[in-house]
Amino acid sequence: MDEATLTRLLDDVRSGTVSTEDAVSALRRLPFADLDFALVDHHRLLRQGLAEAVYGPGKTPEQCAAIVAELLSMPGLAPVLLTRADDAQAAVALEANPGGLRTGHTVAWRPAPERAGTVLVLTAGTADGAVAEECMATLRAQGFRPDYRPDCGVAGVHRLLAAAGAVASADVIVVVAGMEGALPSVVGGLAGCPVIAVPTSAGYGASFEGITALLGMLASCAAGVAVVGIDNGFGAACVVARLLRPR
Amino acid sequence: MDEATLTRLLDDVRSGTVSTEDAVSALRRLPFADLDFALVDHHRLLRQGLAEAVYGPGKTPEQCAAIVAELLSMPGLAPVLLTRADDAQAAVALEANPGGLRTGHTVAWRPAPERAGTVLVLTAGTADGAVAEECMATLRAQGFRPDYRPDCGVAGVHRLLAAAGAVASADVIVVVAGMEGALPSVVGGLAGCPVIAVPTSAGYGASFEGITALLGMLASCAAGVAVVGIDNGFGAACVVARLLRPR
Amino acid sequence: MDEATLTRLLDDVRSGTVSTEDAVSALRRLPFADLDFALVDHHRLLRQGLAEAVYGPGKTPEQCAAIVAELLSMPGLAPVLLTRADDAQAAVALEANPGGLRTGHTVAWRPAPERAGTVLVLTAGTADGAVAEECMATLRAQGFRPDYRPDCGVAGVHRLLAAAGAVASADVIVVVAGMEGALPSVVGGLAGCPVIAVPTSAGYGASFEGITALLGMLASCAAGVAVVGIDNGFGAACVVARLLRPR
Amino acid sequence: MDEATLTRLLDDVRSGTVSTEDAVSALRRLPFADLDFALVDHHRLLRQGLAEAVYGPGKTPEQCAAIVAELLSMPGLAPVLLTRADDAQAAVALEANPGGLRTGHTVAWRPAPERAGTVLVLTAGTADGAVAEECMATLRAQGFRPDYRPDCGVAGVHRLLAAAGAVASADVIVVVAGMEGALPSVVGGLAGCPVIAVPTSAGYGASFEGITALLGMLASCAAGVAVVGIDNGFGAACVVARLLRPR
Amino acid sequence: MDEATLTRLLDDVRSGTVSTEDAVSALRRLPFADLDFALVDHHRLLRQGLAEAVYGPGKTPEQCAAIVAELLSMPGLAPVLLTRADDAQAAVALEANPGGLRTGHTVAWRPAPERAGTVLVLTAGTADGAVAEECMATLRAQGFRPDYRPDCGVAGVHRLLAAAGAVASADVIVVVAGMEGALPSVVGGLAGCPVIAVPTSAGYGASFEGITALLGMLASCAAGVAVVGIDNGFGAACVVARLLRPR
Amino acid sequence: MDEATLTRLLDDVRSGTVSTEDAVSALRRLPFADLDFALVDHHRLLRQGLAEAVYGPGKTPEQCAAIVAELLSMPGLAPVLLTRADDAQAAVALEANPGGLRTGHTVAWRPAPERAGTVLVLTAGTADGAVAEECMATLRAQGFRPDYRPDCGVAGVHRLLAAAGAVASADVIVVVAGMEGALPSVVGGLAGCPVIAVPTSAGYGASFEGITALLGMLASCAAGVAVVGIDNGFGAACVVARLLRPR
Amino acid sequence: MDEATLTRLLDDVRSGTVSTEDAVSALRRLPFADLDFALVDHHRLLRQGLAEAVYGPGKTPEQCAAIVAELLSMPGLAPVLLTRADDAQAAVALEANPGGLRTGHTVAWRPAPERAGTVLVLTAGTADGAVAEECMATLRAQGFRPDYRPDCGVAGVHRLLAAAGAVASADVIVVVAGMEGALPSVVGGLAGCPVIAVPTSAGYGASFEGITALLGMLASCAAGVAVVGIDNGFGAACVVARLLRPR
Amino acid sequence: MDEATLTRLLDDVRSGTVSTEDAVSALRRLPFADLDFALVDHHRLLRQGLAEAVYGPGKTPEQCAAIVAELLSMPGLAPVLLTRADDAQAAVALEANPGGLRTGHTVAWRPAPERAGTVLVLTAGTADGAVAEECMATLRAQGFRPDYRPDCGVAGVHRLLAAAGAVASADVIVVVAGMEGALPSVVGGLAGCPVIAVPTSAGYGASFEGITALLGMLASCAAGVAVVGIDNGFGAACVVARLLRPR
Repeated sequence: MDEATLTRLLDDVRSGTVSTEDAVSALRRLPFADLDFALVDHHRLLRQGLAEAVYGPGKTPEQCAAIVAELLSMPGLAPVLLTRADDAQAAVALEANPGGLRTGHTVAWRPAPERAGTVLVLTAGTADGAVAEECMATLRAQGFRPDYRPDCGVAGVHRLLAAAGAVASADVIVVVAGMEGALPSVVGGLAGCPVIAVPTSAGYGASFEGITALLGMLASCAAGVAVVGIDNGFGAACVVARLLRPR
Repeated sequence: MDEATLTRLLDDVRSGTVSTEDAVSALRRLPFADLDFALVDHHRLLRQGLAEAVYGPGKTPEQCAAIVAELLSMPGLAPVLLTRADDAQAAVALEANPGGLRTGHTVAWRPAPERAGTVLVLTAGTADGAVAEECMATLRAQGFRPDYRPDCGVAGVHRLLAAAGAVASADVIVVVAGMEGALPSVVGGLAGCPVIAVPTSAGYGASFEGITALLGMLASCAAGVAVVGIDNGFGAACVVARLLRPR
Repeated sequence: MDEATLTRLLDDVRSGTVSTEDAVSALRRLPFADLDFALVDHHRLLRQGLAEAVYGPGKTPEQCAAIVAELLSMPGLAPVLLTRADDAQAAVALEANPGGLRTGHTVAWRPAPERAGTVLVLTAGTADGAVAEECMATLRAQGFRPDYRPDCGVAGVHRLLAAAGAVASADVIVVVAGMEGALPSVVGGLAGCPVIAVPTSAGYGASFEGITALLGMLASCAAGVAVVGIDNGFGAACVVARLLRPR
Repeated sequence: MDEATLTRLLDDVRSGTVSTEDAVSALRRLPFADLDFALVDHHRLLRQGLAEAVYGPGKTPEQCAAIVAELLSMPGLAPVLLTRADDAQAAVALEANPGGLRTGHTVAWRPAPERAGTVLVLTAGTADGAVAEECMATLRAQGFRPDYRPDCGVAGVHRLLAAAGAVASADVIVVVAGMEGALPSVVGGLAGCPVIAVPTSAGYGASFEGITALLGMLASCAAGVAVVGIDNGFGAACVVARLLRPR
Repeated sequence: MDEATLTRLLDDVRSGTVSTEDAVSALRRLPFADLDFALVDHHRLLRQGLAEAVYGPGKTPEQCAAIVAELLSMPGLAPVLLTRADDAQAAVALEANPGGLRTGHTVAWRPAPERAGTVLVLTAGTADGAVAEECMATLRAQGFRPDYRPDCGVAGVHRLLAAAGAVASADVIVVVAGMEGALPSVVGGLAGCPVIAVPTSAGYGASFEGITALLGMLASCAAGVAVVGIDNGFGAACVVARLLRPR
Repeated sequence: MDEATLTRLLDDVRSGTVSTEDAVSALRRLPFADLDFALVDHHRLLRQGLAEAVYGPGKTPEQCAAIVAELLSMPGLAPVLLTRADDAQAAVALEANPGGLRTGHTVAWRPAPERAGTVLVLTAGTADGAVAEECMATLRAQGFRPDYRPDCGVAGVHRLLAAAGAVASADVIVVVAGMEGALPSVVGGLAGCPVIAVPTSAGYGASFEGITALLGMLASCAAGVAVVGIDNGFGAACVVARLLRPR
Repeated sequence: MDEATLTRLLDDVRSGTVSTEDAVSALRRLPFADLDFALVDHHRLLRQGLAEAVYGPGKTPEQCAAIVAELLSMPGLAPVLLTRADDAQAAVALEANPGGLRTGHTVAWRPAPERAGTVLVLTAGTADGAVAEECMATLRAQGFRPDYRPDCGVAGVHRLLAAAGAVASADVIVVVAGMEGALPSVVGGLAGCPVIAVPTSAGYGASFEGITALLGMLASCAAGVAVVGIDNGFGAACVVARLLRPR
Repeated sequence: MDEATLTRLLDDVRSGTVSTEDAVSALRRLPFADLDFALVDHHRLLRQGLAEAVYGPGKTPEQCAAIVAELLSMPGLAPVLLTRADDAQAAVALEANPGGLRTGHTVAWRPAPERAGTVLVLTAGTADGAVAEECMATLRAQGFRPDYRPDCGVAGVHRLLAAAGAVASADVIVVVAGMEGALPSVVGGLAGCPVIAVPTSAGYGASFEGITALLGMLASCAAGVAVVGIDNGFGAACVVARLLRPR
């Protein structure tokens, strides 16, 4: 509530156009005052262009279904996502809320209309596919049509070079990599657009469940690479949605 | 070099318009072939909209000055930065290359013309100021005019709320925070634009030279926060420059 | 045994009112001498106002039941808790010791009479609920009636602000949070009362089974936040019981 | 600002008793609205019973002196602390703001009037003294008169037992310990009052700059021990001030 | 493509011997240009003398079988390996691609002809056997006939000394060890040939899933020991194949 | 083989009393020469007074049985232990080698005759019992009769004080503790004999699978405490056997 | 105070031979009651056969000198040690307390008479010498005459074998090693006596200030090795003194 | 000493050709018997083709000079190196032992004659130069003439591609890299020869003094990369010398 709106409201109170009770109620709806939680959240999410997401682990299938239903019942067009869902959670939520689309462990309802922006999703190896899948399901729910180029790991750098055209023309690139997580550094050197790096827990030997990839991406010698948490394909997609939100 | 250009070049060779020697030379300039390094790098950086940077630590003042001079001697308008420079490095480099602007440990030459885009830089506390300074010096060198709001730490959340207007209207927000690194989570919840989180080594007790802030930012409950390395204000500015590059 | 009591005892020995044997026995009962273990422990616990607790993991259901029975057989009114109990442990212990109340993985017998003190339990997200449940079951066993406000995570800071009244009027606040563990910092800035922070293992990406939340809470920029171990809802409740013990 | 106050304000606006401008200004002073920072902070701190503290590291002596002066210029009686000050910071701040009391690396101005509450500060060894000193300087600034018992480490457990009387009668105990940090566990078993554990970086062999003590305190087998960050004597004192605030 | 070849190609274009289309196609086949992926990879692997390997975890048995089939369908003689295969993966891949040899979790097809070079594989204990097995299966696929000496751990150093002759005459030694990983240091002191150390996750007490062995091998006091990742017997065999490739 | 023996052997060779072949064979039996492994190991173990142990994990039940049989077939009286055995391993090994005694996950054959030395085994809590059991089974196999005092954790320090007599009269004390691992520090302060500390993985909150206890024991403020690996009851018993070996 | 003494004291009180005041005073001297600290500690240390030690770091030279003087003023023959002393601390303490012997950073007063027991101190390299020196200065203060064999690192295992005679005849062996800390494993396999391992911070590459050596020693494959903290030569000597105390 | 030699020696003793005393002496010279240390070490090093090295840190300049002198006094041609020498150590050692060559912190005496083998040393950035320098000084001392290509970091992958010819023709490649340590993965994919990876402590943000590079190299997706410790250029050169030793 900007200052002009606030001044007008108080003038309306003074003039009697607005009752004290209504003004109290309106002021209570201020984003930082005592408002109804769900409505506000809904507004915030719409404003951010982000899908509303229910994180599955630790919830019963019924709880998942109910929260999805509640979010779908709200007015608006924001997509709703159920993430990291196991088979039971996905099945119960889909039965209770028809029309969802399941991709791996992600279920999406009410996808956003198609949005502009060229999003490229690269992986270093096939083992990074599940994380890329979560990222792309989230991207699609938000209206993007990501271009997917798997298996571009730096040990065969010509495979990445073969995708140089796509790298050059992307608006944003999500790089999903486990092991030593070197791919974002090479992509960051080739591309001019933002590069979002997603470390994965894929690997062995000294990959330590993704910590090695995470550290490598954070220490990248390519200036301008930004990183999200391990296996967090959903988070990377949310960064993309913020980057490419309508301005 | 796209396929059309390549085909045309070869046609020119066939017709004799271009000599074999010139074609070899042109092909050698392919981004992925055996080219002269510095020129290519210059082109790449211009394309990315990133300043060229010399990292000070481990170099003599004379080396710093010489590399800066070499970069400035190249044709083009890309700004040149000397980062993490100590007093001697900054002094020698500035004397050898007049016209630079020193801000803290960063020296910038040939700043880019002003660019569009509202960049907000928030810090959690005054101890995060040096990192924010590096970030803003880099941003200014690249043509941005960042809005700086220091000391918005979450322990006094009203201070952040007082900046809510700036948060709402920014195109991208850089959040610089040490200690527990909680500020990006709160900002990420308020803002719809991309949030770049920079953990700093400021803090004590259990901040472990920035590791706590780094982990907290990566584990942020606010979807869509992207993170760079500890104290890496320069890196955050490069992410911003990629985000807001002319499209 | 304070000095006056000791002097009186020895005078009684001198005068013959107390036999040497009885005095030896009494001196042996000194808290730091060779006393019967259980009785002393019982006294200590009563004095501390803490429930006696049996930690389930690693014990057979029968062992759990037997220890609970032994503790209940002692004179006194201290509540008895079985914590982190699996289904078999809870069932056997309840069958052998009727009258207990099971809440999640906690079973409580002989709850203390209601005690004064306003205890507020906040969680950052629904995934923190099981830890909050352990905390509240322990609190209730000790006579408190905690006020529970779940899902106040900082990514939607207005949700916390909506609970500002409860925050302001609490005698002590327990904040249960996983992920980056930022909630105690914000609560610590709003509240004047003691804030006990409980990191949870909820989260993904870079939460590392609660280590990130733990470090974040310890490094909190809000002065006056105290922390217990990961997922230790029971421990937090014990801190509360010490804070609010009758003085 | 509770609901009744808000309603009354709006009625006053309606009746013309309060101008729109004044109401906007008053509403802007809401704790969560766009208020002047320092004043609000001052109110918050007074309400919390906490001293206002300036953290020295990373500030110039002049900055330290200026912030202290600004805090002292505010109406009110809250004490002002400069913590972790080096010699130059302490000297300049004391010269610019006469009347302060320096203890080790802490300087306190405008100490609070004496407050009720028996605070016991125990250390494990003499090497923990500097952290205890910071804690006690902060406690004294807030009006407490802590009882100090150094060198009670568990390797000579009789030394702690000799302080059993003080342990039994304290309202809160701060235990400062490095090395393996075992003292809070033993004290937690003896005492019924809250125990605040402060790990210190004192030690060698495998103490790892306080990490071992920190982990040991968090994993304490004594239920009801709460922990602050490494060497954070100031933070422990703030927890005490919250615990013993007038209710 | 060396410069002479390139010049000749362009001359051929100029003279019309080669059409523009064919030249574009040839240039696209440059190792660093836009080539067909699989063929190049195949050439690279042949050149390196390394087996092509499919890493099992995270793939369906059918995917494993299909990738193996694709690799076997290529012209050439490079062996093909399926590593870390579970029973289902191994069975399906073997049924679809007859002629493979399974050893533990490794399946090898089309083994290379016997190659010169004396390779000694030592283990510290029987628990390191599975990792040594993976190493030797890979070595055999590449044409080597490794000499295997298990159970030479340093706690019974005479067992290693009994193998002193084999140590002295080897061309390369692979040392596989868990626990404290001390064996490579002793072997490195006795041998003059390259020593490749493979830490294993075998052990308990403080072996931390191989991290202790890994660190110990990296910090080895014997100059000239090189290390691969934990349990990475395959990787060690690849190092050997590079070392002993025909020159 | 001391120098005198070696000289005599060579004199015997010179004089023809010993054939060259026999001398070669005898020299090959030197502890550091090319000897038969098992025999030597047997001698070494007898000399060390240590039981021979087969570590179960990673071996088939049949392998366990066979190695035990081989060890029992050797001349001598050294006890044989199978450690960390699961049910199948224990059953098969016992059936193949009758006369063994199973205690928890340890099976012992051919126990040594009773040996002098008062060994006290203390635990901090009942959860440390399994590790103490492994320690005591190993001790008993080697002829000791350990005195067992469980549940002496420092949170109820009077329980330990009640065992002060046993502490004072022991020849060596094994202290088994998880959580924060503080018990060895207190015992080390009370006792004059060697204290062997065994960290256990028991605990929660911040015990990190025994790492906290391990670090705490290594950083113990009680001079003269020695530590073995996490959960390594067997190793602690071996230290005791070395300490109390007949001299 | 055993039970007989206690009974006699109380009988004396009853008969009037001892006054109540004297009995209170005597009882206050009980090891677990409210006694004078220093005297008791002195008794405890004598009983343990351990030198009394003042840890230098964090104390002023004058404090060091005063504590040493206080310890020397007590009746008894226990040696007094000042450890980790810098030049100023050593000089001031020696001037105030003549007759001390400085060795490296250790100063010893009133060394104990010669004691029986063959102590062997081995180091892996010359860089471990300072830690061995601290160990041996402490051993000598306690009456031992350690045999010192430096530079026996496992990379040249024949150097250790050359000391095999000393290894075989020792009553206890202290092994001091940095880098990968492998020496105790080899010594543990050769020796039958107790082996005390001291990790040192010597090393580079991946020795991480002694952590690698510490972990390696704890995970040693040689059963019966006990470990103290990093660089803790003093602690190892205390373990030896406990092991070889007169029984 | 192989079996044939031993048999012949004993036959000679039997026949009287060799005296008992001489045979004892010869047997004492066995690599694993009680020999003079220095001579043997010298032999071993010659056999391994490795330079003898004195590690400077922790030694006085005079000690460095004396050890170098001792090594040079031995018969033989092995080079002698002083590593990690500070200015004083280098100056004193060079004055006492003329003819040495100082390169950075390495001083080399008696360099080996030129040896065959093409060694390529690559660095990722100029900050890795000092480690590469140590590596190359060691290589040169051992007779190699390494080819040095600095500044080939993956963020500008064309710089590496420009060195593709040298990569293809090398016998062994040493890759020196800090930051995320990605270069060895890319080189490992391009090269067929052995790749030795040296992580350096160069970097910032999240490079953690070389740990990130170390982990990344160990987890490399390029099969056949072997790793040495952080900043261990000397160790990498020793691996090379073993690889290319005359066979």
